[in-house]
Amino acid sequence: MKNLEVNGDRLWASLMELAEIGGTPAGGVCRLALTDLDKAGRDCFVSWCKSADCEIRVDELGNIFARRPGTDPRRPPVMTGSHLDTQPTGGKFDGAYGVLAGLELVRTLNDYKIATEAPIEVVVWTNEEGSRFAPAMMASGAYGGAFSVSDVLDKRDDEGLRFGDELQRIGYAGEHALGFNRPSAYIEAHIEQGPILESEEKTIGVVTGAQGQRWYEVLVTGFEAHAGPTPMPLRRDALVGAARMVDLVNQIGFELSPHACATVGWLNVYPNSRNTVPGRVSFSVDFRHPDELTLATMDGQLRAGFGEIADRSNVEAVVDQIWHFPAIPFDADLVNAIRVAAEESGYTHRDIVSGAGHDACYVSAVAPTAMIFVPCEGGVSHNEIENASPHDIGAGAQVLFDAILARAGRTS
Amino acid sequence: MKNLEVNGDRLWASLMELAEIGGTPAGGVCRLALTDLDKAGRDCFVSWCKSADCEIRVDELGNIFARRPGTDPRRPPVMTGSHLDTQPTGGKFDGAYGVLAGLELVRTLNDYKIATEAPIEVVVWTNEEGSRFAPAMMASGAYGGAFSVSDVLDKRDDEGLRFGDELQRIGYAGEHALGFNRPSAYIEAHIEQGPILESEEKTIGVVTGAQGQRWYEVLVTGFEAHAGPTPMPLRRDALVGAARMVDLVNQIGFELSPHACATVGWLNVYPNSRNTVPGRVSFSVDFRHPDELTLATMDGQLRAGFGEIADRSNVEAVVDQIWHFPAIPFDADLVNAIRVAAEESGYTHRDIVSGAGHDACYVSAVAPTAMIFVPCEGGVSHNEIENASPHDIGAGAQVLFDAILARAGRTS
Repeated sequence: MKNLEVNGDRLWASLMELAEIGGTPAGGVCRLALTDLDKAGRDCFVSWCKSADCEIRVDELGNIFARRPGTDPRRPPVMTGSHLDTQPTGGKFDGAYGVLAGLELVRTLNDYKIATEAPIEVVVWTNEEGSRFAPAMMASGAYGGAFSVSDVLDKRDDEGLRFGDELQRIGYAGEHALGFNRPSAYIEAHIEQGPILESEEKTIGVVTGAQGQRWYEVLVTGFEAHAGPTPMPLRRDALVGAARMVDLVNQIGFELSPHACATVGWLNVYPNSRNTVPGRVSFSVDFRHPDELTLATMDGQLRAGFGEIADRSNVEAVVDQIWHFPAIPFDADLVNAIRVAAEESGYTHRDIVSGAGHDACYVSAVAPTAMIFVPCEGGVSHNEIENASPHDIGAGAQVLFDAILARAGRTS
Repeated sequence: MKNLEVNGDRLWASLMELAEIGGTPAGGVCRLALTDLDKAGRDCFVSWCKSADCEIRVDELGNIFARRPGTDPRRPPVMTGSHLDTQPTGGKFDGAYGVLAGLELVRTLNDYKIATEAPIEVVVWTNEEGSRFAPAMMASGAYGGAFSVSDVLDKRDDEGLRFGDELQRIGYAGEHALGFNRPSAYIEAHIEQGPILESEEKTIGVVTGAQGQRWYEVLVTGFEAHAGPTPMPLRRDALVGAARMVDLVNQIGFELSPHACATVGWLNVYPNSRNTVPGRVSFSVDFRHPDELTLATMDGQLRAGFGEIADRSNVEAVVDQIWHFPAIPFDADLVNAIRVAAEESGYTHRDIVSGAGHDACYVSAVAPTAMIFVPCEGGVSHNEIENASPHDIGAGAQVLFDAILARAGRTS
């Protein structure tokens, strides 16, 4: 029997209240980064934190840090959080859950009048979604060293509005330099955004790391010809070659299942005319795997296999790797602390690798990092019908509470 | 040694002169149906025919019939011809060759002062290409009973201009009712528009008929999902299913090679986003074969195979046959007359089936019909670089001359 329990009902109520800011008729949320609605969401969070006696500090990229002081002010903070911006047709939980689970842990510590040695900070990262200002995870990326501050401030949205100007406009261009407050540990709670936990009926996903990603663009070239008078053996059909490559990509993923993902999501045919043998096909390949070595193996299989298919199909294929995001292993001690916390609370759990990008991926470059996943209905996210159960939402917050408290050190 | 020889140089010179009307900088021709350039091309042909003492009659769809009288006015004419309109980026030979080969045969008869029992008519069919007014082979189709006169006259181009009005405007809305002059036989000379004759080094293609065609639209439905967190076994990837179907279509064509053609020329992916598992793919299938029974077999293989692939790929497939153009066997006697004529002139030849549609396909519904193919460079047509050799152009005209003369009956 646990002594210290987070208040799942309070957390759920706060999630629902926050979801009204930018709430859509279909039950989702549209709260794009640096809009008036983003400001309203931030203001709501800040007022709740102030009511919970937190000190608010904002850095030059608008990242908000709500600090609950520790007894030892020399210790760096233990940090948790996520983001408050959403997709244009986003849901109530993506991002908001991690932020408000952090707030709930502060509120619970206050309820029990518990002091910690290290300070605890709840962070809101600016513009995780990248829907208005690309790319995604922009401010946590800069925090982790992937982008410069000036590059981020100079980004513009589709209407030409500048990130830095919009940040100023909504009053969240903070006085603190980026990275003023490095944590000793960072743990982010998030809905899974995939179907694994639900399909295996597990409550907690102990996230051991994030998949590495390699993205490719492939151009297959054959020769355009009339579909009527051109005999099969004389054809150089770019789509037939590309189709075999799509099948191979799928095979590569399946053979390294369950950890590998391999997707062709984008494919265009030229001239795309019913009675013309296609002369050219371009398509994308998205390879993901938690292990860099296996990703390299997949790369080799793709190049060898595409070459063989091109020869056999009488076409040419050019493979261009356009992006490589290395696999990220999270901090083993933190991951274990989450596993132990789930176990001690009696929650079913399994280790899981994040397939999507999260702020935690970039933060892991500068601090020990881990994540906690909870199931979402049907694995659906980036969708207004995104949903999760109050039980699972509470369970994730409980595991976060236990893991953070263990790290921060309880003094009373 | 032949006594009566067409003048290949004169025919070539006429082809080059006609090609200047609508000639493009790249060496092609753009002479869309019922434009001022089409009128100029028609006027040129008509003036040449009048110089060759032909009587000109035009029907209500603008089909032009140039008649060289026979000695027996009760006999129906023996007819040859093709079309003068071109693709937007068409060549010098598609259509024009068949019309001017007919004119050359009249000129040759005049040179030798030969009379025939039956009249000989050279016909220009309106709007074969269908580039400006869809569908293709519109006026020969009406002549063959596939469309009504009023339907054709009411067709509109992309700018809303009406076929009947444009026909009137260029002065080719004739006084004669469609079908006023049924021929006893129709033979059309045409470039092959495919690579078979060239690759086998044959001069004359003895066209035994036209392929039957079945056109399909296929919709494959899976389920959209995030390419990162969705494990391979839980996916319903519409593109993977579609890719396997594209490969099967190609296999079906190859297994029934060389007579079968099977093409997926058009394919669209939804939502077509790099990191989303495709939820929906639609594509076309174009099946062609000279034998209706084999086409039906291909249909069965497609439906059974697509069902099996859909099950195996965890997607759904809906197959919709949108068009069926039955295979057309040309008239055996006429085909044989062409084979004999090629043989007697000492030209290499082979039997061949037309993969593309031609005016002759529709005319065959109302008269004994056959076609003569000559090679075109690289099999390329519907392209400004379309080309053919003067030797082959002359050879085809010679075979046409001999076959028509045999049919019309020489009296002097």
